[in-house]
Amino acid sequence: MARVVVMYKTPKDPSAFDQYYFATHAPIARRIPGLRKYEVSQGAVASPAGPSGVHLVAVLHFDDMAAVGRGLTSDEGKAAVADVGKFATGGVDILMFDNREV
Amino acid sequence: MARVVVMYKTPKDPSAFDQYYFATHAPIARRIPGLRKYEVSQGAVASPAGPSGVHLVAVLHFDDMAAVGRGLTSDEGKAAVADVGKFATGGVDILMFDNREV
Repeated sequence: MARVVVMYKTPKDPSAFDQYYFATHAPIARRIPGLRKYEVSQGAVASPAGPSGVHLVAVLHFDDMAAVGRGLTSDEGKAAVADVGKFATGGVDILMFDNREV
Repeated sequence: MARVVVMYKTPKDPSAFDQYYFATHAPIARRIPGLRKYEVSQGAVASPAGPSGVHLVAVLHFDDMAAVGRGLTSDEGKAAVADVGKFATGGVDILMFDNREV
């Protein structure tokens, strides 16, 4: 399996962010071909030192990195990536990797 | 469910890091009480812009944030956290959050 971890840093208006994310962005992102599972953080994102500066984490599951590539370069994937610019006012970090259980 | 996402930035000696991580650290971390699942990235950790600066991502699954707190403050959790300082020569970022499927 592969994961895409999307870390949204604290936006200018967190409640406007949340409203847009769940009403508009999530339905767009769910259409990405090959997306097997879509998880989001609920409540505060903490770090051991205290506040993390991250407002929301989304974890997208795909079969493998090839499927991630196909998904993100599809029309639906391009629409989801383009939409991020409309609400991620605090910036966003994205990590993509194959993973395995240990 | 809750997740602890541990992002190890590129260490000074990546092959020494890998050897220590899988032979020594992973067996220590697996003993943390309440750990339900333990996943690690396999191969390169990418970002949309290219190299991510992250060498390895570990995702630890717990029932909820209360279980994360109990796990990390247990003797086994403290041992795992203390061990990180022995090999994470590039630094580490940790995010902890409850999550849900959307």
